[in-house]
Parts: sequence; structure tokens; C-alpha cells
Amino acid sequence: MGVALTQAALDLGHEVVVISGPVSVTYPAGAKVVPVITTDEMLSAAMEHFESCDGAIGAAAPCDYMPRKIHTQKISKTGQPLTIELVETADVVATLGQNKKEGQWVVGFALETEDQRFRAIVKLEKKLCDLMVSNGPTAIDSDDNEVELLDPSGHVIEAISGSKSHVAKRILAQLQQRLVKRN
Amino acid sequence: MGVALTQAALDLGHEVVVISGPVSVTYPAGAKVVPVITTDEMLSAAMEHFESCDGAIGAAAPCDYMPRKIHTQKISKTGQPLTIELVETADVVATLGQNKKEGQWVVGFALETEDQRFRAIVKLEKKLCDLMVSNGPTAIDSDDNEVELLDPSGHVIEAISGSKSHVAKRILAQLQQRLVKRN
Repeated sequence: MGVALTQAALDLGHEVVVISGPVSVTYPAGAKVVPVITTDEMLSAAMEHFESCDGAIGAAAPCDYMPRKIHTQKISKTGQPLTIELVETADVVATLGQNKKEGQWVVGFALETEDQRFRAIVKLEKKLCDLMVSNGPTAIDSDDNEVELLDPSGHVIEAISGSKSHVAKRILAQLQQRLVKRN
Repeated sequence: MGVALTQAALDLGHEVVVISGPVSVTYPAGAKVVPVITTDEMLSAAMEHFESCDGAIGAAAPCDYMPRKIHTQKISKTGQPLTIELVETADVVATLGQNKKEGQWVVGFALETEDQRFRAIVKLEKKLCDLMVSNGPTAIDSDDNEVELLDPSGHVIEAISGSKSHVAKRILAQLQQRLVKRN
């Protein structure tokens, strides 16, 4: 979706900064790509670049958790079970939502396996998003997607399915009409 | 190393069956490739094919642990830490070592970050290997490797460094002389 949204935004004449984790896709040449590894790095880069952007679309799936302790040496097998303690990472989209200035907008993505629309609306409110794209696990590693675009009142503005390129174009068209043109 | 060892074995005229997890490398066309995902699947496939093979080289790095419980739905963030319980997987090379018939041989790989040679010798004995290749973390995602080849008495037969292709050729040459020719 990141590639498709980048292309759709470029096609509408926007300048695009992509903050991307280590993925195997290639972004359109017209975009500035900022590579990051950890969720914390993504948050720092997003906050830095958000300053000079009209808005942000959060289509990445950064890790929700990180290990409490990082071992510097290989852990040897002992014959016993092993427990990994994880702590939550910072929420990138929620932090952008909390820090948006007058006129800036934030579009989030919610990928849920159960109660998709309900959970997407909860995330939209919690993360102070202006639009939320609700999708499911079939989106992962697929050329296609099936999404619902939700507004802050929880209404489904548009249900979109098809290629990720098509879905991205429709999301950008709605975003252009509702968020970009209002400014 | 799997690709390099496959090519080196083919070059010596061996028939090669590669049991491989989901990796990004392409194996030589002359080998039969059996794709697997989990360590359990690798063990099953290895045991099945070992029956009709002269020996086995364990160059894969299968997962040492697997989750005790697999969630079928996405885990929602709660604001609290999360603990993952892992249990040890079966040891593929050790199981082959325990099941080898008269004349069959097993070559293991040990990747350690500390006390490399000592730990490699412990693994050689524990897994009933005929040779053990000891290497370190610099082998990962690199075109080069630096290894020590150990025999069952714990002696370093040969220290090899250079391209993985070169390292594989030397391992196969030693294997050919010590294990294949004895049969």
C-alpha cells in the first residue's frame, strides 16, 4: 500500500516523503525515501518530517512491541522453555495525531482480524486521525486489498476493493476532496 | 552456505537434495529442492530423504524455539508488557546423527558468538556428527565466511576463510576424502 499511495500522491502533484522500514518493495523515484529500522526510528523520522508536511498517511505496520532486553550474544539452548518479555513501542500515528498543527491532517490504517470496522473507529478516535482506512489480513503480501474508508464520525465514506493501486487512487481522491481542498 | 555447498557437491558429481526453509537465495538447478517452513517440517523432510542419502550436511539455521501458543487473531495492544513463551524445537542434525546407519555421515554447522570452537566441539559430540563446521555471526548475509573444520576428536582439520564458494569447496574436499572415500 505504501508504494501505491506514494504513486497516487505523486500523480496528484504532491511532494512525497516515504518513511519506510526494511521492506522488499521499491518506491517510485519521485519520492524522497527515509529508511528506518525500528519503530522508535520511524517515530523520530516521522515527527521530523511532519513539521514541513501538509499531512501524513500511516500505512506502515511498525512493530507494536520490542524486547525489554536485547541479548548481545547468541542464547544457547538449555532444554527448557524460554520467555521473551516485550514492551509496547511508541504509537507513531497517535503521536502525529497529537502533534498536528491547524490544517494538518493524519490518515491512519487499521489492520484487524476481528471486529474490523469497530476497532478501526476506536483507533481513529484514539489516534486523532482525520480518516481511517480499515483493512484485514488479506492485504498482507497481496496485490489486492479490500478496505473501508471511515470518517471521524465513524461513517463508511467509501468501501473500496481491487488492486492496491486502485485502492490507493480512491483513498487519495477522498483525501484530496476532504482534507487537502479544505485548507 | 547452502547454495555454495550444493554447487560444490554437484561439481563433485553427487546427487543433492536441498531441504530449505523460506530463503531468498536460488539453489543450483541440478539439485532437488524440498521447501519447508517450520523446523518440524524440516526434520520430517530430512528424516525422509536421509534414508536414501549417503550423508547429510546441516547448514540451515532452523529456529531453535517455537511459540507455545499460536494466536489465530491479532493481539491488540493493552498498554501492558507482553510475554511470549517459547519451547525448544526438535534438533534436526542431532536426530539425523542418532538415526544414521552404518556408513552414513552427518556434517553439522555451529554458529556461535562466544567460545566458538569449544561450543562447536560440544555440539559435534552431542549431535553425533562426523565433522563440524564452526563459524560465527559474520557468516550471516555475507558472501564470505571464516570457519574451522573440526573432527570428532575435536581437532581443527582445516581453518578456511574466503568466499562461501571457496569455503564450501574445501569442506567438500575434506568430506570427500574423510567420509565419502572410506565407504
